[in-house]
Amino acid sequence: MNPLETAGQPGTIEQPVRRHRGGAIETVDDHVGQEWPVALVFNGISHAVMMCTPRDLEAFAVGFAVSEGIVDRNADIQDIEVELHENGNADSTLPYAEVQLTVVQQAFVALKEKRRALAGRTGCGVCGIESIDLLDLQPERVPDTGFLQRLAPDAIARAARELPAHQALTRLTGGLHAAAWCDATGAIRYAFEDVGRHNALDKLIGQLVLDRADTKDGFVFLSSRASYELVRKAARVGVPMLATISAPSSLAIAIAREAGVRLVSFCRENSYVDYDTV
Amino acid sequence: MNPLETAGQPGTIEQPVRRHRGGAIETVDDHVGQEWPVALVFNGISHAVMMCTPRDLEAFAVGFAVSEGIVDRNADIQDIEVELHENGNADSTLPYAEVQLTVVQQAFVALKEKRRALAGRTGCGVCGIESIDLLDLQPERVPDTGFLQRLAPDAIARAARELPAHQALTRLTGGLHAAAWCDATGAIRYAFEDVGRHNALDKLIGQLVLDRADTKDGFVFLSSRASYELVRKAARVGVPMLATISAPSSLAIAIAREAGVRLVSFCRENSYVDYDTV
Repeated sequence: MNPLETAGQPGTIEQPVRRHRGGAIETVDDHVGQEWPVALVFNGISHAVMMCTPRDLEAFAVGFAVSEGIVDRNADIQDIEVELHENGNADSTLPYAEVQLTVVQQAFVALKEKRRALAGRTGCGVCGIESIDLLDLQPERVPDTGFLQRLAPDAIARAARELPAHQALTRLTGGLHAAAWCDATGAIRYAFEDVGRHNALDKLIGQLVLDRADTKDGFVFLSSRASYELVRKAARVGVPMLATISAPSSLAIAIAREAGVRLVSFCRENSYVDYDTV
Repeated sequence: MNPLETAGQPGTIEQPVRRHRGGAIETVDDHVGQEWPVALVFNGISHAVMMCTPRDLEAFAVGFAVSEGIVDRNADIQDIEVELHENGNADSTLPYAEVQLTVVQQAFVALKEKRRALAGRTGCGVCGIESIDLLDLQPERVPDTGFLQRLAPDAIARAARELPAHQALTRLTGGLHAAAWCDATGAIRYAFEDVGRHNALDKLIGQLVLDRADTKDGFVFLSSRASYELVRKAARVGVPMLATISAPSSLAIAIAREAGVRLVSFCRENSYVDYDTV
């Protein structure tokens, strides 16, 4: 589901663990989802560190840049270089990664000005913000392209049925989130996994942008809950619908309504809940 | 489970939703977990905004201040005032809260210096950090108080069995995290719920600090996965063991090992997985 090369980027590590069951203890090798600090560096200036599963990092960086409003389009990114530091640095042997992005001068100037104005930076879209005044609770309206009218009645059911086949890391580890891109029939076109749900969504958005796919002509299906920052990120690229397997928060519903994004949750093969946000 | 007054702080809102099941559609009132921006203001200076379920906010603020290393102890906090803005402000009608903390001058000076030095702020412990150099991957070792030797063999099973009874908001909404404090027998002494797992842990740590309970004499039981920032926060107050219902990340295991915190995950009534971090 990922046109980028992911060979050599397993996303999990294997290690011995002790399984206790009843009174019995068994030592087995088990897969654990990788969580690395990933620094996003724009034109040489480190902007944010996200805790991220270190694969599809190019898509992640592009998605973060777009969903956080740092660049408007793929063409604003001139170069991306992913550096994996498996053995850490002078301070720590823990692995980390850096993604060096070169963005057009206009975007970089805007980013510097925004950083100066806000004296802040963004993380999952909120955590880096230091005061309520800096919080952006007024999302842009997504354009109505008629996608929701074209959506097949069984599209949510189909996406729910198909998603598990694309959750290889979750099957191995029991602990990652997936973000998938579905067409109007509910067929899954892309799927990404990460320890962080907002990272999984950023990887998805980034790959769509890299492939110049139309982010207004499909819907996002998430294995996780729906919270503020997920709706915010989806709205920023005009996604008309967000479907999640788990529950939404009050603010996710409110922001979806403001943005005109359709929000459905508790999505299963046979049922879902519609929050009437559009 | 919460000695603070939570009357008038439901943590959920009720609203009409449309349940789709098979071909049938039913309009019902449903509970949704509240997610509010909560600004933490230290001595008049706004430090961070967290997306949080607006109850137990006094405990949350104390826990955040302690688990993020802003203050060392309860006595460093001279005053806490919680302001709920149910109808928003001039910019938005969306509700938010502010918690005004007055901390001793020494802690405030240290916070100002830290902010100047890092040019940063903390969120869930990571998101506000802008470069790898500023990331603290070297946790302090938790002191060995002999708690793990005193732990009953069935303590994890008991905590797993008892936790659901303390997840009232999760039962209503299907979508909150719980953080509980358990004694050596596995009996649950405190439990807090939040849309954010790190917030639930901060509320728990804060209440322990407010009650002058010994954070080295018990363990934390979380309904969620174990990721970096949860281990980091627990280690900072000397918690000897973290037990989670869902999976750990690679970095959670690494940091638990560095800190000497015992980490067990996939905790059920009859089984758990031990990552041999101590």
